[in-house]
Amino acid sequence: MKSSAKMLKRKGTRDDGRSVADSRTEMTEIVLPQEANLLGNILGGRVMHLIDIAGAIAAHRHCHCQVVTASVDHLDFLNPIRVGELIVLEAQVNRAFHTSLEVGVEVFSENYSKGDRKHTTTAFLTFVALDEIGNPCPVPPLIVSSDEERRRFREAGDRRKARLESRAKQSS
Amino acid sequence: MKSSAKMLKRKGTRDDGRSVADSRTEMTEIVLPQEANLLGNILGGRVMHLIDIAGAIAAHRHCHCQVVTASVDHLDFLNPIRVGELIVLEAQVNRAFHTSLEVGVEVFSENYSKGDRKHTTTAFLTFVALDEIGNPCPVPPLIVSSDEERRRFREAGDRRKARLESRAKQSS
Amino acid sequence: MKSSAKMLKRKGTRDDGRSVADSRTEMTEIVLPQEANLLGNILGGRVMHLIDIAGAIAAHRHCHCQVVTASVDHLDFLNPIRVGELIVLEAQVNRAFHTSLEVGVEVFSENYSKGDRKHTTTAFLTFVALDEIGNPCPVPPLIVSSDEERRRFREAGDRRKARLESRAKQSS
Amino acid sequence: MKSSAKMLKRKGTRDDGRSVADSRTEMTEIVLPQEANLLGNILGGRVMHLIDIAGAIAAHRHCHCQVVTASVDHLDFLNPIRVGELIVLEAQVNRAFHTSLEVGVEVFSENYSKGDRKHTTTAFLTFVALDEIGNPCPVPPLIVSSDEERRRFREAGDRRKARLESRAKQSS
Amino acid sequence: MKSSAKMLKRKGTRDDGRSVADSRTEMTEIVLPQEANLLGNILGGRVMHLIDIAGAIAAHRHCHCQVVTASVDHLDFLNPIRVGELIVLEAQVNRAFHTSLEVGVEVFSENYSKGDRKHTTTAFLTFVALDEIGNPCPVPPLIVSSDEERRRFREAGDRRKARLESRAKQSS
Amino acid sequence: MKSSAKMLKRKGTRDDGRSVADSRTEMTEIVLPQEANLLGNILGGRVMHLIDIAGAIAAHRHCHCQVVTASVDHLDFLNPIRVGELIVLEAQVNRAFHTSLEVGVEVFSENYSKGDRKHTTTAFLTFVALDEIGNPCPVPPLIVSSDEERRRFREAGDRRKARLESRAKQSS
Repeated sequence: MKSSAKMLKRKGTRDDGRSVADSRTEMTEIVLPQEANLLGNILGGRVMHLIDIAGAIAAHRHCHCQVVTASVDHLDFLNPIRVGELIVLEAQVNRAFHTSLEVGVEVFSENYSKGDRKHTTTAFLTFVALDEIGNPCPVPPLIVSSDEERRRFREAGDRRKARLESRAKQSS
Repeated sequence: MKSSAKMLKRKGTRDDGRSVADSRTEMTEIVLPQEANLLGNILGGRVMHLIDIAGAIAAHRHCHCQVVTASVDHLDFLNPIRVGELIVLEAQVNRAFHTSLEVGVEVFSENYSKGDRKHTTTAFLTFVALDEIGNPCPVPPLIVSSDEERRRFREAGDRRKARLESRAKQSS
Repeated sequence: MKSSAKMLKRKGTRDDGRSVADSRTEMTEIVLPQEANLLGNILGGRVMHLIDIAGAIAAHRHCHCQVVTASVDHLDFLNPIRVGELIVLEAQVNRAFHTSLEVGVEVFSENYSKGDRKHTTTAFLTFVALDEIGNPCPVPPLIVSSDEERRRFREAGDRRKARLESRAKQSS
Repeated sequence: MKSSAKMLKRKGTRDDGRSVADSRTEMTEIVLPQEANLLGNILGGRVMHLIDIAGAIAAHRHCHCQVVTASVDHLDFLNPIRVGELIVLEAQVNRAFHTSLEVGVEVFSENYSKGDRKHTTTAFLTFVALDEIGNPCPVPPLIVSSDEERRRFREAGDRRKARLESRAKQSS
Repeated sequence: MKSSAKMLKRKGTRDDGRSVADSRTEMTEIVLPQEANLLGNILGGRVMHLIDIAGAIAAHRHCHCQVVTASVDHLDFLNPIRVGELIVLEAQVNRAFHTSLEVGVEVFSENYSKGDRKHTTTAFLTFVALDEIGNPCPVPPLIVSSDEERRRFREAGDRRKARLESRAKQSS
Repeated sequence: MKSSAKMLKRKGTRDDGRSVADSRTEMTEIVLPQEANLLGNILGGRVMHLIDIAGAIAAHRHCHCQVVTASVDHLDFLNPIRVGELIVLEAQVNRAFHTSLEVGVEVFSENYSKGDRKHTTTAFLTFVALDEIGNPCPVPPLIVSSDEERRRFREAGDRRKARLESRAKQSS
């Protein structure tokens, strides 16, 4: 069964690194009226909240420890999500650094009466792994195996470089 | 990509029935202190709430309309889920009847610091499909293709028979 | 006054068992839009959540310790409950076993503009009593005094027998 | 059965007035960590929120229409309520005026491990009855039958007089 | 900058008392459907909840320790607040007593499509300052500097006197 | 009084543009355990949710209509915020474009036992103004009057240029 297999793999790779599949996370929710504005569209802040949770779960699954959100890259909200639609979030680790890691989260809306799905946004979050007293701790390496995983790994490096450059510019 | 493929398939099968994969739903959540009792275990009622939501999403995806929970079969809670663990729910349609359908939901807890997963409970829910003014409406047929899907289909029929017998006995 | 009397009795019966009245619990809530689907009916999962809380309060009042939900019997939702209606839950202990007990919960909807009340469902839950470190601990005996209480006590025994038989069959 | 009896009575008295028993409301909740401050005491604001809901339900049951909170008399919080304890609220209509009514709410904490109950506060709220477009509408008369009900009725009149005098003084 | 200035001042006045400006607190929220009744008006209990939080924050800022709500004076709800409007709360300490203090909270609704603001209610709350084990502890003196602050200080003394007299009368 | 003055000004400037002060918004909240991870730090997603609400309120106050979040610039979380601390958000409109506007939100944590305040993050959000049927509509001009307001106005233009360039690059 899918779930057991996932767990088996996770255990086996504990020391040498973990695959992208080990951290892959799917969340699905029905959009309720309490999460929407008066026009019936989900609040941007609610989407961001869910992105952070989906990202943190993927980071937890990779690191096997507590994590804290360090940064979130620019977000564009392309399509509104309506009350009564589903919001689907798919997250996976893109790259592990020393004590931090980048997680990518894709957000879709799904209209079950029409049966179609729209892309809402793509988010890139950086999490820092924390030990039991809250200090940063090393993150296991990520093993990439497909072309898409390698592309994501490479682009995560580019984004990290851009983040560090931008931070250096701000403090200079 | 997985998501697009899913959607494409869903559209193609609208008139003739839908596959089990069309309604498969995964939900993942971190258990927060507010959902637990003083011993740090998730409340049974919270698990039941999530089971109903996961089941309803699977039913929505199959029926493409509103649904209402008609019944939930006996539930055993085998393993407690602790604050800080993940709760993972996997739902799919087991069988479509005339205006109702049975959905199965598996619930797991996942401890990300240990990296293991435990089975918490299995739930079988019956939903009734409703049209726009709230009356029961026909449910598309379910196309089963694997041995496991056929086993679930058969057992869903047995459970329905047992439910009807039990109801008949109560009202006689 | 009713409340003081209840408490007095509870204290007096601590060692020898507790009456059904000692654990009787009533909960009343207004159904808010956030708990309903798009047709304005309360979600089944919300009703289950409230059933579990009402049941746990009755179990707490009988056991004077923490409890955890072990199982919930088959539930039929007979009548939808609408936004703006009241949901009323009445719970009491039906029978105490060694370290577990059965609680019965009746759920009603009440429409205050019409002034009528409908029966939504009847639930039977099994809770396990836990001591301060989370291990099962003995439950005080239940003292039944009316015919209805004796009927519930007897039927709770029948249900327990059916649960154990069903579990034995599953694992064989 | 108690519930049916209550409803029967309610129907019978619709035109001529309603008894105090018709509006009597009991709410019971477990205090969760999310409702408490860092010392583990329930927030005063949470108690006030529950008082308003319990009072509104009693008012709904008497008026059979929407109501809105017009005022709340001075509240003293006599005993803190701790996380894990029960909060029990008992509300009933004390007196009906022309388009408004006074509801009294008693709040208790109940410690189920000790099995005792403490009085937290007594609240007196005034609600205004509203018709379907939100305008004030007449409230059915209240029929009082016991000495305690007559005392509450008389004191509600005194409180109303004091409220009107205080308001007159403020605007002069 | 305003915020830094506030903090600087707060530090400097720690031993000798704090100004009214040190505890001034502003809260702004959008009223969501889940906080309203079926006519679209915010629930009185929700307003009371927010009043208590705004008041507690002002008390925290003055006392630099935990606080607990001891009493709330009579509240009149003058104008309803509608879903989609803003609710704005402004709180400040009016007077410090020995281990308690009075906080005043003004509540406004703001309709952003019309651009106007209405006064909903004025609340006076008494909080008791608590040390780390939950015992009452001394409150720093309040330094008043404007005429309005002096008027509030004087009236807070009058209200305290009225509260004590009313309590004495009740227990006699 | 401050509040009335604000409103007066707002009315007077309706046709010709609005000042930065007209949209300035302050939100203050106590961080509750339910919003934190197991180490007691507020979740990043909760901060993002509050940023979006504070930003939307500022945008509402400027536009006098519904708004929807179009994008959020890169966010760094500099300092963790702990359970029991205050989170303070200050938002104002930086620049109005044709049918959109940029809002800046500063986030601080405030430790009331120490009496100090730390900067957590600065966020820049773009909102689109919507008319009553959900179509983009013109935004009133922003009148800037101080040097700081002019700096923010200029930088908002730079950020918009960078956003448009980045979007062009992605779609090419």
